[in-house]
This record gives sequence, structure tokens and C-alpha cells, in this order.
Amino acid sequence: MNTTKAYSAASATSPLSLDTIQRRDTTERDVRIEILYCGICHSDLHTVRNEWSSVMPTTYPCVPGHEIVGRVTKVGAGVTRFKPGELVGVGCLVDSDQSCPHCRANVEQFCSEAVFTYNSPDKHLGGVTYGGYSENIVVDEQFVLRVPANLDLAGVAPLLCAGITTYSPIRRWGDIKGKKVGVVGLGGLGHMGVKFARAFGAQVVVFTTSPGKKEDALRLGAHEVIISTNAEEMKKHAGSFDFILDTIAAEHDINAYLGMLGLDGNITLVGAPEKPLAVSAFALLFGRKSISGSLIGGIQETQEMLDFCGKHNITADVEIIPIQQVNEAYARMVKSDVKYRFSIDMASLKSE
Amino acid sequence: MNTTKAYSAASATSPLSLDTIQRRDTTERDVRIEILYCGICHSDLHTVRNEWSSVMPTTYPCVPGHEIVGRVTKVGAGVTRFKPGELVGVGCLVDSDQSCPHCRANVEQFCSEAVFTYNSPDKHLGGVTYGGYSENIVVDEQFVLRVPANLDLAGVAPLLCAGITTYSPIRRWGDIKGKKVGVVGLGGLGHMGVKFARAFGAQVVVFTTSPGKKEDALRLGAHEVIISTNAEEMKKHAGSFDFILDTIAAEHDINAYLGMLGLDGNITLVGAPEKPLAVSAFALLFGRKSISGSLIGGIQETQEMLDFCGKHNITADVEIIPIQQVNEAYARMVKSDVKYRFSIDMASLKSE
Repeated sequence: MNTTKAYSAASATSPLSLDTIQRRDTTERDVRIEILYCGICHSDLHTVRNEWSSVMPTTYPCVPGHEIVGRVTKVGAGVTRFKPGELVGVGCLVDSDQSCPHCRANVEQFCSEAVFTYNSPDKHLGGVTYGGYSENIVVDEQFVLRVPANLDLAGVAPLLCAGITTYSPIRRWGDIKGKKVGVVGLGGLGHMGVKFARAFGAQVVVFTTSPGKKEDALRLGAHEVIISTNAEEMKKHAGSFDFILDTIAAEHDINAYLGMLGLDGNITLVGAPEKPLAVSAFALLFGRKSISGSLIGGIQETQEMLDFCGKHNITADVEIIPIQQVNEAYARMVKSDVKYRFSIDMASLKSE
Repeated sequence: MNTTKAYSAASATSPLSLDTIQRRDTTERDVRIEILYCGICHSDLHTVRNEWSSVMPTTYPCVPGHEIVGRVTKVGAGVTRFKPGELVGVGCLVDSDQSCPHCRANVEQFCSEAVFTYNSPDKHLGGVTYGGYSENIVVDEQFVLRVPANLDLAGVAPLLCAGITTYSPIRRWGDIKGKKVGVVGLGGLGHMGVKFARAFGAQVVVFTTSPGKKEDALRLGAHEVIISTNAEEMKKHAGSFDFILDTIAAEHDINAYLGMLGLDGNITLVGAPEKPLAVSAFALLFGRKSISGSLIGGIQETQEMLDFCGKHNITADVEIIPIQQVNEAYARMVKSDVKYRFSIDMASLKSE
């Protein structure tokens, strides 16, 4: 076992602070990774504060972080795909049973034995898994991703969750080239949705409540921006969208967006509002519309997404912070005061 | 113009009673049809009672009926597809602009100029269109369907609405052969859904709240019946369905059925509960599930459905009534006291 520095929360009301945790020795199939950057995801905050207690209660201490990019420092004897020195990523998953129908279909995120990167039962050491707010991590090579060499690493980290979360539903919808695609919300997820939809050749329209985000949306790749509180603007685009990616986790009027869809149009949710959405059946029937959900992506698709990003030079727009500022970053994230993702420079942890 | 006997409602609170209406002379493209049977659809009742006043207010007198089967008695000079003496059907649509993108895509039901069989502006005579509770009807040949000769006509009538409403989403979902398909509710729509799903080779499971319907569901073609109020039974089938057709127009818990779906499963609504459905975003995200709506079908697809019924010997299970019993039939329909559709023998109107 190896003692490793990390930032953990001791309870739902504690700030994150310096701690030490244990990492297992690399087993035959393991890859040991020195973490260079770790993105800050809303899930980190929800878990740290035990806000998902009804579905996934938090075990403390909690070390969050599942947008991990780093360098391989050691591999087990049976590891064939990675060598020390290589750049790699780890996302939301670090293990699964690798044999069930979901795993065989490359959707390990739906495996009933899926082990999430943090706050999941750790079958090696007992207790729960610890995430990327730490010096290093040891992961089964099947759950380690290859990172294209041409990308800025701080901006790669958020691809491992925000990236795949938005890439997967866009990709799965079909060929969006030339289609009119909406992205609701311009935050960590939304800004990635804009980049991917644009890269796939769609006519991209951002829905936002903030007129101040207009210029930035266009810079990120949107062709047009609709202020969703402006009934006139909304009406002008009614019935014209093929696909809408809805990244809003707060309560909002889904029927307004159903009204934006054309025949057989689909809106896919990647954010999960706590309260049920009030969906008008009429809004679904007239135009044969649909609402779907999507949840991160499997390992194979995550690798495909990273390769796509390498080819199209796509990374997240990040604000780099030292880990000592993580609690302030959480406070700012709650206010959507970040463009568009925090990425922790993990070198800052070495100096503590 | 031709004076024709019909049953109409004079107001939202009036019973249906004998009336006379005017039908236009056949124009060049028109087909005149002597109506033999007309099915009774829930929409007839909703319209007669002005229960959809917020979306489609009713103009009185109102002659409902859009599940029409009859015999051609006269055709216009330009009519090429029909001859006097032929058996034909008319469903929910009698006209559309026939040139917009929706019409060109054979989904005339979504044309903004679609003319419904009753309670739609009548561009020939002014006022509104009058439906099938009448001796005859005059319809543009593009909206007249060919009826297979081998089928029982009373049972054919409901195919024109209940049939296409359930056939269309099942067909559009894809190849359901060998798939596990649920049908929620065993009424006019549900019993047709069972017949179609079975004919397409699915493993068909009916969800019902009525244990008394079990035997009948199996007779109609279901392989299995789940009493949806039985938590134990529901749990046993959780996550196992590929597709569910939801025919319930009353308020119900859609999340319970989302829980029945497996990965990428879809539930399609063909009934429209008045109040918004409360949809859990989590239930959509975990398993990448979707909820869709479907609304009748286009003319081409309705013909395809009728031909399919001819080939597979499918008709609706009907209780044949004389038109003099239509008000009692409405009262019984509200209590779901019909197996599974009323079909009016229009010969009864001649004797009035």
C-alpha cells in the first residue's frame, strides 16, 4: 500500500482539506497514474455534501474527482496497453464486472457492479473508492483511457466527464450534420455540447437565460443564441429543431423546449433535476416528439471521444486553480461563476 | 348539395340525436361513400362534450365519428383510384394542403392545414366538417382508404383510428420480433396494440389494473399479464422491456413503467392525460430511456395497416349497436364497459 496526499471532506458540512489516503499496490492488471489535472464536476459537490443521499449516500472521508488526467508511473506485469511515461485519463468508472450484457455491450456505466471512481465500494482495500483530488490513483487498465498528445492537459481533464456526457447523446442521435441542434444551458456541460455539435457539422443554437453569455456562445461555436425568457425569440424558432441537448440540472419548463422541436424531434437530458419534470403528453403526441436521458458513456465510447477531440483539437475551457482554492471554487460553481470548468493543477498538492 | 341524416349534439350537454346535415356534391376529386359502420372513439365523446375546449373548441351542431367504413356510391370525373361498389374506409383526416413538408413526408396528420373528419373548418361548405355518424360522406380520394375484402366490416371500422394509432408507433419502433413489448391498458387502443405486437412477433405483456381482464388479454394474443398494482409482479419484470405502448389517457405513474424498460428502452404514449406527467429525470438517465408520443398515422401508413390487417386477419373486437343506442354507449365507454370498441351499424339510421 502507498500513502498518498489527497483533499477530502470529513462530513457533509466540512470543507475539503488536506488528508492522507491509501492506494493499493499495482496488481497484475493495474496502472498507477500520477495525477496532473483533475476537473471539478457538479457531482463532486453533490457527493461531498451528501445531496444525493437518497440514491447514493456518501461515505466519509470523501475524496471526489472523476475528471482525471495524468502520467503512468507503474504498470502491473499483465498490463499490455500502457507503459510508464504515457499520458492517460480516468473518468467516472474504475471497474465493472466486465462480463454482464451491459459490459459486453460497452455500456459499463449501466453494469450493476460498476465501481465509480469515488464513493463506490472498493473491493481491493475495503471502504470506498477515492477520486482524483489526490497525488495518484491505481486503476485496472481496462478503465484507463489514452490521451491524445496534442491537447492541453488542463482542458482535457473535464472531457472525462463533461466531455463524454455530452458527446455520447449527440453521437448516438445519429448524423447531425446540417441539422438544427439546440443546447440548453451554457455551463460545464453545455459549452462542451456546443463544441461537439459544431464539430459534427450541426447548425448550433444555444438557449440561455443570460444575455451576457451570447458573445461567448458564438465564440464557442454556436451559430445563434436564443434568450429563452424572450417569448418572441422562442416563438420564432418553434418547431424547427431536430435535436436538443438539455444540460440544465435545475427545475425548468421542458414543454417549452418540446415546442421548439420539429417532427420526430428529440430532447435528451444529461442533467438531472431533483424534482420530476412536468411533461405535457399533448406536446409529445403532436409531432411524435421524445424525451430521453443519457448518462456519461462507456469506456470504448470515451476513448472514441478523446480521439475525436485530438483530431478536432477540442478541449474544455478551463480556469486552472491550485487545490488550496477548491472550496472557493465550489462556492463559485454553485453561482455558475466559472468559464466553464475548474481544473485543479495537482502540482499544487505536492507542495503541501 | 345533399341532405343527409346524421346524429349530432346541439351543445356540450346535449345527447346525440337525429338531425339532418348537408353534404357537398362530389367535385372532380371526390368520392361519395355510403357509411356501413362507424366506430365510437373516445375522441368523439371528448369533442361532443367540448372537453378539449382549450386546444380544439367544439362547434355545434357536432357530428362525430372518424372510424368509417362504407361503400363507394359515386366518384368525381377525376377520380382514378376508386369505383362505385368498392369497400373503403375514412379515418381521422379528410384533407390537408398536400404540398407541405409534412404532407410530402406522408404524415398529413401534422400538416398545419390538416382537415379532421369532424369539427374542422370545412372549406367546401363553410362551418365545420361532419363525421361518420351519418348516412354518407364525401371525401377527396387522397384521403380514402381501400378496405381488404376478407375482413368483417364492423370490426374494420375501429382500425381507422384505434388501429392506426397503435400500429404506427409499434411499426416505427423497429423490428419487434422476439422483443419484449408491453401494452399498458386493455381498452379500445390497448387490445389493438396487443394484436399488432403479437402479429409482428413480439413477446407481448399486458399491464392492467383489472385482474378480470387477464383471460381476455391472453385470448387477444398476450403471452403474459402483469397486474400493475402488484408491486411484487412489477419488480419481477423490472428493466426487462424493450418497448412499451402506453394507451392510458387517465393520470398514471409513468415512472413505474420507465422502471420496466431495459437499456435504451422506449415508452410511447398514444393516450393524452390532461394533466402533465411527472417524469423522473433519473429514471430516464439510468438506462438511457425515452418517452415518446405518437398521433394516429398518415394516409400511406393507414393503408399499409389495413393491408397488414387483411393479410393477418386482424380486426377490432366490437360490440355492434344501432345508432339509437349511442348515448348509452358513451355512458358505458366512460366506465370502460365495452369489449373493446362500439361499432355503429349505420343501417339503423336509415329506419329513422
